[in-house]
Amino acid sequence: MKLWQKEGVTTADQIERFTVGRDREMDLYLAPFDVLGNLAHAQMLETINLLTKEELGLLTDELKKIYQQIEAGQFVIEEGVEDVHSQVELMLTRTLGDVGKKIHSGRSRNDQVLVDMKLFTRDRLWQVAESVQRVFNRLVSRSDQHKDDLLPGYTHLQIAMPSSFGLWFGAYAEALADDMLTLQTAYRLANRNPLGSGAGYGSSFPLNRTLTTELLGFEGMHVNVVYAQMSRGKTEQTALTALAAVAATISRMAMDICLYNSQNFGFLTLPDALTTGSSIMPHKKNPDVAELLRAKTNRMKALPMEITLVMSNLPSGYHRDMQLLKEILMPAFDEILDCLDITDFMLEHIQVKPNLLDDPKYDLLFSVERVNELVLQGVPFREAYRTVGKEIAEHTYHPPRELYHTHEGSIGNLGNELINQAMEKALAGFGADRAQTAIRHLLG
Amino acid sequence: MKLWQKEGVTTADQIERFTVGRDREMDLYLAPFDVLGNLAHAQMLETINLLTKEELGLLTDELKKIYQQIEAGQFVIEEGVEDVHSQVELMLTRTLGDVGKKIHSGRSRNDQVLVDMKLFTRDRLWQVAESVQRVFNRLVSRSDQHKDDLLPGYTHLQIAMPSSFGLWFGAYAEALADDMLTLQTAYRLANRNPLGSGAGYGSSFPLNRTLTTELLGFEGMHVNVVYAQMSRGKTEQTALTALAAVAATISRMAMDICLYNSQNFGFLTLPDALTTGSSIMPHKKNPDVAELLRAKTNRMKALPMEITLVMSNLPSGYHRDMQLLKEILMPAFDEILDCLDITDFMLEHIQVKPNLLDDPKYDLLFSVERVNELVLQGVPFREAYRTVGKEIAEHTYHPPRELYHTHEGSIGNLGNELINQAMEKALAGFGADRAQTAIRHLLG
Amino acid sequence: MKLWQKEGVTTADQIERFTVGRDREMDLYLAPFDVLGNLAHAQMLETINLLTKEELGLLTDELKKIYQQIEAGQFVIEEGVEDVHSQVELMLTRTLGDVGKKIHSGRSRNDQVLVDMKLFTRDRLWQVAESVQRVFNRLVSRSDQHKDDLLPGYTHLQIAMPSSFGLWFGAYAEALADDMLTLQTAYRLANRNPLGSGAGYGSSFPLNRTLTTELLGFEGMHVNVVYAQMSRGKTEQTALTALAAVAATISRMAMDICLYNSQNFGFLTLPDALTTGSSIMPHKKNPDVAELLRAKTNRMKALPMEITLVMSNLPSGYHRDMQLLKEILMPAFDEILDCLDITDFMLEHIQVKPNLLDDPKYDLLFSVERVNELVLQGVPFREAYRTVGKEIAEHTYHPPRELYHTHEGSIGNLGNELINQAMEKALAGFGADRAQTAIRHLLG
Amino acid sequence: MKLWQKEGVTTADQIERFTVGRDREMDLYLAPFDVLGNLAHAQMLETINLLTKEELGLLTDELKKIYQQIEAGQFVIEEGVEDVHSQVELMLTRTLGDVGKKIHSGRSRNDQVLVDMKLFTRDRLWQVAESVQRVFNRLVSRSDQHKDDLLPGYTHLQIAMPSSFGLWFGAYAEALADDMLTLQTAYRLANRNPLGSGAGYGSSFPLNRTLTTELLGFEGMHVNVVYAQMSRGKTEQTALTALAAVAATISRMAMDICLYNSQNFGFLTLPDALTTGSSIMPHKKNPDVAELLRAKTNRMKALPMEITLVMSNLPSGYHRDMQLLKEILMPAFDEILDCLDITDFMLEHIQVKPNLLDDPKYDLLFSVERVNELVLQGVPFREAYRTVGKEIAEHTYHPPRELYHTHEGSIGNLGNELINQAMEKALAGFGADRAQTAIRHLLG
Repeated sequence: MKLWQKEGVTTADQIERFTVGRDREMDLYLAPFDVLGNLAHAQMLETINLLTKEELGLLTDELKKIYQQIEAGQFVIEEGVEDVHSQVELMLTRTLGDVGKKIHSGRSRNDQVLVDMKLFTRDRLWQVAESVQRVFNRLVSRSDQHKDDLLPGYTHLQIAMPSSFGLWFGAYAEALADDMLTLQTAYRLANRNPLGSGAGYGSSFPLNRTLTTELLGFEGMHVNVVYAQMSRGKTEQTALTALAAVAATISRMAMDICLYNSQNFGFLTLPDALTTGSSIMPHKKNPDVAELLRAKTNRMKALPMEITLVMSNLPSGYHRDMQLLKEILMPAFDEILDCLDITDFMLEHIQVKPNLLDDPKYDLLFSVERVNELVLQGVPFREAYRTVGKEIAEHTYHPPRELYHTHEGSIGNLGNELINQAMEKALAGFGADRAQTAIRHLLG
Repeated sequence: MKLWQKEGVTTADQIERFTVGRDREMDLYLAPFDVLGNLAHAQMLETINLLTKEELGLLTDELKKIYQQIEAGQFVIEEGVEDVHSQVELMLTRTLGDVGKKIHSGRSRNDQVLVDMKLFTRDRLWQVAESVQRVFNRLVSRSDQHKDDLLPGYTHLQIAMPSSFGLWFGAYAEALADDMLTLQTAYRLANRNPLGSGAGYGSSFPLNRTLTTELLGFEGMHVNVVYAQMSRGKTEQTALTALAAVAATISRMAMDICLYNSQNFGFLTLPDALTTGSSIMPHKKNPDVAELLRAKTNRMKALPMEITLVMSNLPSGYHRDMQLLKEILMPAFDEILDCLDITDFMLEHIQVKPNLLDDPKYDLLFSVERVNELVLQGVPFREAYRTVGKEIAEHTYHPPRELYHTHEGSIGNLGNELINQAMEKALAGFGADRAQTAIRHLLG
Repeated sequence: MKLWQKEGVTTADQIERFTVGRDREMDLYLAPFDVLGNLAHAQMLETINLLTKEELGLLTDELKKIYQQIEAGQFVIEEGVEDVHSQVELMLTRTLGDVGKKIHSGRSRNDQVLVDMKLFTRDRLWQVAESVQRVFNRLVSRSDQHKDDLLPGYTHLQIAMPSSFGLWFGAYAEALADDMLTLQTAYRLANRNPLGSGAGYGSSFPLNRTLTTELLGFEGMHVNVVYAQMSRGKTEQTALTALAAVAATISRMAMDICLYNSQNFGFLTLPDALTTGSSIMPHKKNPDVAELLRAKTNRMKALPMEITLVMSNLPSGYHRDMQLLKEILMPAFDEILDCLDITDFMLEHIQVKPNLLDDPKYDLLFSVERVNELVLQGVPFREAYRTVGKEIAEHTYHPPRELYHTHEGSIGNLGNELINQAMEKALAGFGADRAQTAIRHLLG
Repeated sequence: MKLWQKEGVTTADQIERFTVGRDREMDLYLAPFDVLGNLAHAQMLETINLLTKEELGLLTDELKKIYQQIEAGQFVIEEGVEDVHSQVELMLTRTLGDVGKKIHSGRSRNDQVLVDMKLFTRDRLWQVAESVQRVFNRLVSRSDQHKDDLLPGYTHLQIAMPSSFGLWFGAYAEALADDMLTLQTAYRLANRNPLGSGAGYGSSFPLNRTLTTELLGFEGMHVNVVYAQMSRGKTEQTALTALAAVAATISRMAMDICLYNSQNFGFLTLPDALTTGSSIMPHKKNPDVAELLRAKTNRMKALPMEITLVMSNLPSGYHRDMQLLKEILMPAFDEILDCLDITDFMLEHIQVKPNLLDDPKYDLLFSVERVNELVLQGVPFREAYRTVGKEIAEHTYHPPRELYHTHEGSIGNLGNELINQAMEKALAGFGADRAQTAIRHLLG
């Protein structure tokens, strides 16, 4: 029996359900941005005489009321209404009649989806940037706090050379500063105005796209209307690639934490709130939160591929396939923001084991220091290397525990202030102020 | 401000939400299978004297009542109960007291999740197989119906040689018959009993795993307990790979349909129920359903990669990361079943344009027939090829419209009965009867 | 300056190089299979009177000579010859004149590529199966050898319960037995005869495809000619998915080895041949071979996605894009065979540390045994669990080191004979004998 | 029989071959950059008194000679020499004796690989940027040339509204301008100095990393030494993501070209140099070059995933796995540069069919214009939409063929100068001058 042969479910229902999919749910994310797009489009229409000043006033007032409803969590897409754009149009028409309809001149639904998606993506990328910055600050602060707490450094998972928690925390901070550049690029691609591109072939109305670009605080516009349409997919792909970059940094840190929390390493302790017990083993304190963080962030690395697979080999021009991009992109922002919050909490409460290097099993970490000691006494490097190898084999090796690292970014000179500067610069490059100012002005 | 600093939301809530994730939602899928696993485990415990006959009777009755509740849609995981396994245990304990607790001897929660997931996956893969068979039958029937309706055949998207709708529909039928082999492999990997593997290191109770294997209708068991645990990830991966194979066949067909429905091809007509209009272009009949089918199935091809990314480079032994596999796997079954239903409906109603090859622009399709004509008259192939090339250039070429294809699988001899046999054989290879009989027996 | 403006390089050269790509290099893999396809096609042509008995004799003799040249490593694709098919044709024509040309009746180059690829893939999948079996045997043998060598078992990378090297080696053996099912499916998809499908639309010659199916030892044919063409991509995808499944098992084992070889675990020792030193740290013995094994096998998991990306949303019918599938598929067989050889060598020489569980840090592994001890004394499970928790906290816990695991697949009863049976059955399912017998007959 | 049991091949050979892999081949790409890194490191060593002025002079002279050899194509990695770094060291030691060895103070091989990879990647990304710019210029020029050549615009592959070749060429130009931002980010991540990070834990020598940063023209340094090591993987990932973005643009254009070249569209003609015939169909002119371009660029979209899979869940610190990143990254640059060259050639020679919209089958493209016509006459939009729908159904519809698009980016106002500006700005953002000046200075 087919699904649609269930009692009371007609074929039309089944197809309706299939085509709408999760779109109404996704469209709720877009509601505030749809109002903003309407506000800007209406202002522009007035300048080209497709709305009177009075009509513009009516529309603007009504749109602001809708915005307040959205903010108050009172906005719904009513039963039988296809999407957020229709819902807003319906609300305008209910109160304003024909004036409500006039706002649609020179615009198609594709246009609206595009501009809403850009505004939404721009907004969320900035939220992610702010969350990343919070985790970054936490890492820098923990790095400073533990600059003298030594940690075995590994290569090939083999004991290698002395490291420190200062270096370890700081490394992930700097990784996030680099991820911020990728976020910035995604932000800039989202920060382009597609409004006025119609269904991908523009409009014969004399639209002023430069004006809507300014009103919505975009850095620039997608000039070519065919490209404006084609930017769909690319915007989502670039945004998800940026989230995946952040996710990759978090997942790697989570792997370290799970490993360092194992009894065989024992470098870190997680607070009880972040561990769970076992239903059968009374001794367990499992790092479930770190593991789920690892899993969720690892999974996110597949999301750009989902966009790629939907878009690959589609000829130019709009296809309904693109609707699916929404449900790939939008929940990903919730997921990464949630992961970043949890990461921050974990980093705040994680406890570092002191004096790890007093354990004799880590003596070999200092073998390079011993080699360098001999080199500074004038022994050629290759000979010193062989001598120390022999000392180790013959158990005459004594680790020289004094460390003298002074260069930029080393144990003795973490360089966190340089890393802070890089982060500041990356954040400034977003140009998020312009967008925020414009939005305040539109709603003001 | 962090999410968990929202009024009334404590850190613990936030972490609870993060660790539980969508797990309670996913666990509802598992409910009937959890009861089945309990029924089999209880029977086995009685044979090794960890339950009395009477206790077994009480447990069995109660478990069957819970199964009926699930079937009736009345089962819920109560607020504060962590998962489906705890809910079932709670219900047993409420009615049976200590007897309810005894069912947990020789078992860990990991064990239960594993066996539930196997039973669920086995069940859903068979549902998919049945849906695929339905679409297959539709394709064969449309192929038979249109065996004489010719269609231009393309290579390089260039007009090449005569094809037919009989061949076109039949090709996708045979593709599905091959996909059935991949589904069968996934089914067989799901059809292994992990019960008794505990948390991945077995139990010191003298469990009889051969018995639970028979009771649950499994084809065999995951013998080694460390491997039983390690099969997590592999089972899901293999299942999603099989769904992705089916999805790839559907997406390719959907691409053909979108193309053939374009005015520039005009080979197919979609019924109104499967097309939509445009908000600004009054002439449009867009194939949205076929496009969404294409998008959804294309997206599904990324799902095996999500499993891969979660599992890669995890050392052996259970990790909480694996919880996330549920929400990657489980909704995918709903999605593919939905897509297969829509595909079947589309194939039922799609209309084929007759007499396509009467259009002179397709005359060149017969150039190979013209070459062969000359070859049969004794002209060497290379010379005949040149002659026809010249005829085309000089506009003296006349297409020989009679077709004489007689070999297996060609226009004149579709071979659908052979394809049917392949499908029958593939389905028989699942051995689904054994599973169904066992389940009926357990519940009987 | 463009590449093609380099001195002496014409545009035509550049385009020639671009279109040929690595195809000539790849085609060398196909040479013996091209001869086999020619032998079968020629025999068939004689039965439908497109070759005389004498012509068949001449062609057969010549083709066998070419086969011997290939075997002897003397076959080359000459400068200016486009592919292996043209080279074989050229060699036949040089010696036999017009008779050499006649073999091309009823066949197109697409046809030849398809059948060669099927024969090649079938051959290599069987080689992989044999290599997997060799590694499997090694694992079973090491498992038997170390059935009494205990190993800490982990969940969440936390010390959990006693395991053994017997279980650990055996787990990977059983994983490979399951991977064999995926290999078998790939083999069966490769084991279908596409010959006679022409350029995807069949031939008007009265070909006998059933005959060539038998002659080449195929299990069956791709019946529908449009599907035969469409199987390209699917065959490669399924083969690479099977290799990726084997690769995933190997990469996980390599991760365990790298971890267990770390000083913080110290469970395994690698022979000197499998470790390398450091240019600056005199104490290092790095497990480079295991790491490269992990990296190479992890990378292989992306290969099915490459096929997916090339094929997605291509309409039905041949496209030149498919040429690229060769260079994705073919070298992957060399890579996996190499990895399997190295794995076997590593498993042969790896040394296991005895008496690991004597170290008091692993005492907690026995906490479940202690709980079960109390349960068997009549204490209810939940109370026993609490008691042991208290013992651990108060340092009064004494690990009961006797283990009594007797059920299938547990420490005391590894079940390797069952795993062996599963492997035997999986191998038998390939039906490789039929193929080998047919090939011997064709060449005999 | 194992591979290594072949006559004359020892186990050691086999393992040697496995661990070295394609590394020597890959290292040839690094040769010039290794010399540059040596030059900078040597200058720095002199400032901290680890080299005398005289020794620096000797080393500098010798290194410049090696650079010239590389430029002249005379540099080889000799048999038995492991990598490019050892080869350069060997050459220095041969001529300079102990002075040649001294250059290794305060540096490890990991350090060298890292800095070489950064310099190589930075160099190649700039080459790609220049090639992209060349294709961009070609597209803008073709766009300007064909601004009045109309083209049917499609949505859902259905005839939608008038477009033009001006818009079509221009759209891909603007896509490349956006891709340039992604390239720029990759360039900036590559443009960081890792030198001085040793094996990931720095050096106890008082290195001056700020100085080597300046000498090598880096924009900044990877400050934290643990992060410098961790940047491996991220650098490659980001570079390949950027190449994949360019590839996605090219592949989509190639899909359009293949489609528009089909007889069913017939919008474009490819020159003979870019098409091939068929072995059996005398009438074919297949767009093989466009198809291979599509396939190669589609395949490139999987490359970032290969990096992801190798790196996922590796704990921090160097692992030999990272060696494999070289052979994923390095040949990809050759591939994309080749594809861009071919794209440029194709775009130069592609011919556009004039007067496409005279064909009555495209009359419906003007339906929106007809609606707008009525709207401008005062008819409300929804009524006008219905009226035109009725005209079409009743065959009274006359397409208004005059187009009046004036807004930014529309048919009548392509906005190519704005797109040019965006490209200029994106290129300037690389800051490639600094790098080039520094390199010239080092070699001067």
